[in-house]
Amino acid sequence: MQFSSSLLENAVNEFAKLPGIGKKTALRLVLHLLKQDTGVAGQFSEVIARMRSEIKFCQRCFNVADGDICSICANSLRKQEVICVVESIRDVIAIESTQQFNGIYHILGGIISPLDGVGPDQLNIESLISRVQKEKTEELIFALNPNIQGDTTIYYIQKKLQPCNLRITTIARGIAFGGELEYADEMTLARSLQNRLPVESYVSNR
Amino acid sequence: MQFSSSLLENAVNEFAKLPGIGKKTALRLVLHLLKQDTGVAGQFSEVIARMRSEIKFCQRCFNVADGDICSICANSLRKQEVICVVESIRDVIAIESTQQFNGIYHILGGIISPLDGVGPDQLNIESLISRVQKEKTEELIFALNPNIQGDTTIYYIQKKLQPCNLRITTIARGIAFGGELEYADEMTLARSLQNRLPVESYVSNR
Repeated sequence: MQFSSSLLENAVNEFAKLPGIGKKTALRLVLHLLKQDTGVAGQFSEVIARMRSEIKFCQRCFNVADGDICSICANSLRKQEVICVVESIRDVIAIESTQQFNGIYHILGGIISPLDGVGPDQLNIESLISRVQKEKTEELIFALNPNIQGDTTIYYIQKKLQPCNLRITTIARGIAFGGELEYADEMTLARSLQNRLPVESYVSNR
Repeated sequence: MQFSSSLLENAVNEFAKLPGIGKKTALRLVLHLLKQDTGVAGQFSEVIARMRSEIKFCQRCFNVADGDICSICANSLRKQEVICVVESIRDVIAIESTQQFNGIYHILGGIISPLDGVGPDQLNIESLISRVQKEKTEELIFALNPNIQGDTTIYYIQKKLQPCNLRITTIARGIAFGGELEYADEMTLARSLQNRLPVESYVSNR
């Protein structure tokens, strides 16, 4: 792609560095910003720069925060004794949008994956364990992606926490709502058979 | 979508304002920038801000430029007597990437479209006409999108330029290379029959 302006070219290259954005899309986005008033692009770039330089991570749960403690941890209406353990900030946003969880979170920052060179030491696991011991945590809910790495991580943390008297659970794995049995993989189908629910509890949950 | 940080939320909202980018994609992009070093997001926002505030438009052809005249107009190796008339900067980039055109450009900034409220006065048509009269232009090549608005624009400009002794052409319309006759619309097929080429010239062009 040939540009008659290096300013344009640099802007396109910066956008094209973002995941899932190729040169053509980058050009479309840049030309869009170029069409708007100067203020629009100015605000866009300022907000991005501020976000990166001023954002903090909650010292308790490692969620993104405007201050030292995130708004979820600071909310006294939420059950501080129930911690939901997730992999990333994105998972917090997904769970929050269900409006079904009223506890607090702990973000691991990844999952144990020896093939990718990620061991327990690179994750926020030590801080979770000391947190559970310090705070009066009653239940730990694992909401990790259902795969081998997720299960390994659950197993590792659960072993570490065995001395503590704690209820440890994981979100249910099974056939997704609207999914079709026919296309489910054997592992999922097998697990959903093993963990079958009494129909009364299923009906009452609806 | 609920965010625990207003800085994050603002950044996601800014990205989501861009065309074709929804909230989920915006979040992915913002979290990507958040993962990188502070410098990466800083450079990203700086390049965008500079692009918008410092970019200029070529006073001759209205292409984007770093100075008063764009690099294409300033290139003395290009034929200054052949002007290719296009709708937008994007078309210039598309034609430049073919490496088949060695003239200069004139960007209209749109096409005549009464339904969208775009008349000849909103476009760079007057400047094209005075440019053709001033410069010793020999040929005007229209490279507009093949639709009613494009044809109207060509017709309008051609009428205005009738007094000037000028070769006016338009890029060929026909079946695209790799396309299938069966799926071509009647208009395209009819035109490509009307404007059929002698096989010798076709073969020599390959």
